[in-house]
Amino acid sequence: MTSPINAYLAQERDRHLAELMEFVRIPSVSASTEHKPDMARAAEWLAAQLRQAGLENVQVLPTAGHPVVYGDWLHAPGQPTALIYGHYDVQPADPLEQWTSEPFEPVIRDGKLYGRGATDDKAQLYTHVKTVEAFLQTQGKLPVNVKFCIEGEEEIASPSLPAFLEKQAELLKADAIVISDGPMHDEGVPSICYGLRGLCGFQLDVQGPKNDLHSGLYGGGVANPATALVELLSSMRNAEGHITIEDFYEGVNVLSQTEREAFRELSLDDVKLAGELAVPELTGEAGYSFLERTTARPTLEVNGIYGGYQGEGLKPIVPSAASAKLSCRLVDQQDPDRIMQAIERHIAKHKPAGVTVKVQQTHRGKPFYISPEHPYIQAAAAAYETGFGKMPVYIRSGGSIPIVEVFSRVLGAPVVMMDFGLPGENMHAPNEHFHLENFDKGIATLVQYWQELSQLQK
Amino acid sequence: MTSPINAYLAQERDRHLAELMEFVRIPSVSASTEHKPDMARAAEWLAAQLRQAGLENVQVLPTAGHPVVYGDWLHAPGQPTALIYGHYDVQPADPLEQWTSEPFEPVIRDGKLYGRGATDDKAQLYTHVKTVEAFLQTQGKLPVNVKFCIEGEEEIASPSLPAFLEKQAELLKADAIVISDGPMHDEGVPSICYGLRGLCGFQLDVQGPKNDLHSGLYGGGVANPATALVELLSSMRNAEGHITIEDFYEGVNVLSQTEREAFRELSLDDVKLAGELAVPELTGEAGYSFLERTTARPTLEVNGIYGGYQGEGLKPIVPSAASAKLSCRLVDQQDPDRIMQAIERHIAKHKPAGVTVKVQQTHRGKPFYISPEHPYIQAAAAAYETGFGKMPVYIRSGGSIPIVEVFSRVLGAPVVMMDFGLPGENMHAPNEHFHLENFDKGIATLVQYWQELSQLQK
Repeated sequence: MTSPINAYLAQERDRHLAELMEFVRIPSVSASTEHKPDMARAAEWLAAQLRQAGLENVQVLPTAGHPVVYGDWLHAPGQPTALIYGHYDVQPADPLEQWTSEPFEPVIRDGKLYGRGATDDKAQLYTHVKTVEAFLQTQGKLPVNVKFCIEGEEEIASPSLPAFLEKQAELLKADAIVISDGPMHDEGVPSICYGLRGLCGFQLDVQGPKNDLHSGLYGGGVANPATALVELLSSMRNAEGHITIEDFYEGVNVLSQTEREAFRELSLDDVKLAGELAVPELTGEAGYSFLERTTARPTLEVNGIYGGYQGEGLKPIVPSAASAKLSCRLVDQQDPDRIMQAIERHIAKHKPAGVTVKVQQTHRGKPFYISPEHPYIQAAAAAYETGFGKMPVYIRSGGSIPIVEVFSRVLGAPVVMMDFGLPGENMHAPNEHFHLENFDKGIATLVQYWQELSQLQK
Repeated sequence: MTSPINAYLAQERDRHLAELMEFVRIPSVSASTEHKPDMARAAEWLAAQLRQAGLENVQVLPTAGHPVVYGDWLHAPGQPTALIYGHYDVQPADPLEQWTSEPFEPVIRDGKLYGRGATDDKAQLYTHVKTVEAFLQTQGKLPVNVKFCIEGEEEIASPSLPAFLEKQAELLKADAIVISDGPMHDEGVPSICYGLRGLCGFQLDVQGPKNDLHSGLYGGGVANPATALVELLSSMRNAEGHITIEDFYEGVNVLSQTEREAFRELSLDDVKLAGELAVPELTGEAGYSFLERTTARPTLEVNGIYGGYQGEGLKPIVPSAASAKLSCRLVDQQDPDRIMQAIERHIAKHKPAGVTVKVQQTHRGKPFYISPEHPYIQAAAAAYETGFGKMPVYIRSGGSIPIVEVFSRVLGAPVVMMDFGLPGENMHAPNEHFHLENFDKGIATLVQYWQELSQLQK
């Protein structure tokens, strides 16, 4: 049935990849104000691609921040409407010196496309665009109705999207939200993700003396803000890796035996993974496996720490200030605002003497959960079987797409996460890449998925 | 008796200050390789000044690092020989944005000379040059023999000077070493420093995964090097501010009641000082006063800490690595190499799982002590009475001039520290400055000191 589509996709593959590389070449770094023009350029480029694919009503819609690219095709009456969400923004590329090739000069090596944003989310997003194009070019129609809602602020935690969704709820109305923005369980192991961790990001600033002091003349006499920061961070975690912030675990479910068994069946080879990451061993919260720690347990990670002298040689000072950027990954019913309050109470209680401490929440996102039994999830499983030749496994992801929970809540529709990335593709890290084999298999899966959906009772 | 000298000094003062500003204008930052040409320029400039002052045998002598500037005047037979030590190098100027005026564009405001190196050590060193000039211009001779030995690596802990001193011991032979490179006890309170803290500086590097990892996908699953660094640093100090590294306090004397009473008499106003530094309170090791903590007790300070993302916004990563620059100030019989070994043992014992830790000693200097009863010290006290109109107090300094101990040991002569700086002059910090009133009083003190020395039994 899909054979004319397959033929079309094979024939157009080189052009599709060339377009994808053009997309990756745009340094659409949402976090950096200097890339604002690139963000606008990426949005316009994508809008043109949607039009070219045959989508209608294509618009670059303003938000309080970077714009949303919208387009739809709504000529399948009586059929479900799928809202495809993705993002055209990417993470900053630094540390630049660790890239083998330029982050924004995409190259294909060994069947993998290298470049910032390759897997997160440009190639994955692009499978959707090309699936629509293939249907419309070969059949003149799609089995279902589709809407695209592609934002430009996912990498900075989607600050403008919730208000946008509320405002555009009518335009975006759909029966399901489909997202391809993460990794499959493992190479050759397609998966459907039924849970995401939430996020609570914050900045911690410790202020000591008004300027750096000579550590000989003042050292020992005044509190060192770097030491105070160390004490404060240290107070948040015990030797077993448990977070010691009071009420932190409120809303975290105890893992059931069934769930722990499923985790055990999926479990990766710790020694192999440690070798790949070049660490002596995998460690973390005592009593939990790597998969449990990274998907079903909350975390408190230091994303960055800085204060005092970082240059060549030594500067014997008591630094004036020290800061840390932190983020918690949240699970189940944890709430980012309640977590922030718990952290603020902890800081108030544990603030070391002789310094002032400022804490500011920078990011918030609720965790997400959908039952693996949902018919739209089951349809996705069937589509994967066609696209990848095997049934997917059901997993939870440790990452956060806070907007998933917002979509689900604001639009009142199930969210189906159909990931085509792989865990080792260096999302957010140097040498990000995407296995092009999964570009083809991803499109094949989506071609089947729209057909599966059209056969469901609406 | 000194009245022609005083007249000369008054008459030449503007020129002397203009020369001093020329000196401060040279960015002689020894820590930074980019300033190497400035270091050579500063040495040559200083040599020319010594010649102009009337010193003989002036030479810029090579060392393994930045050169030493030497000059002498040895025409007072039967009189003691004083070796004047100082340094023409300065600390890095950063953070630049905190300077009110450019660090290397000296300006005079309210009787104070602002610029990097103003008090540490350019103006203080310059009092010696101008004292010699004043004697030779007005009397054609000095009461004692003098030698200048001005190095360019004090701010990087004098790595080349010990070998230089050993090699040039004959050239540098002297009856006393005189150094003006620190602050007096307080404004209007001249002091003689009879003890200095030693230094043990080291770099601590914690290595985690080979590159930054996505904190959603890996967070909780691998050790975070920033967290590991926090744990390691936290393990070195308890809640009372005592260092918990085994054997750290080996060689630290218990303070005698007499000494503690002397400290109490000198004690500063903690609340006032906290206000000046803009900290909520002065804190540190429990059971000791500010003066005791900063001069008679050892410390372990974080001079700099860094790892992960420091830019705009948040980057939700598990950083690949984190580092800290640390330094201990040492007292009494503490030995920097034994301290380093103790730290290495501590690190080996407390290394968190999942990371590798590298520690590297970067700086070492032994503590120094001289009896306040020494006749050269007593002569200095008498000179201060003339120069400043009051007897000095006897203090210990929290700073380190590791070379003081080396001078004393290699040349076998007492070291007399005659400081003309003030504690609030922002040594090593932005807006470093020097009170020019103490330029005049310092020269007057030195003029008297050489006369006092000439009256001592050699």
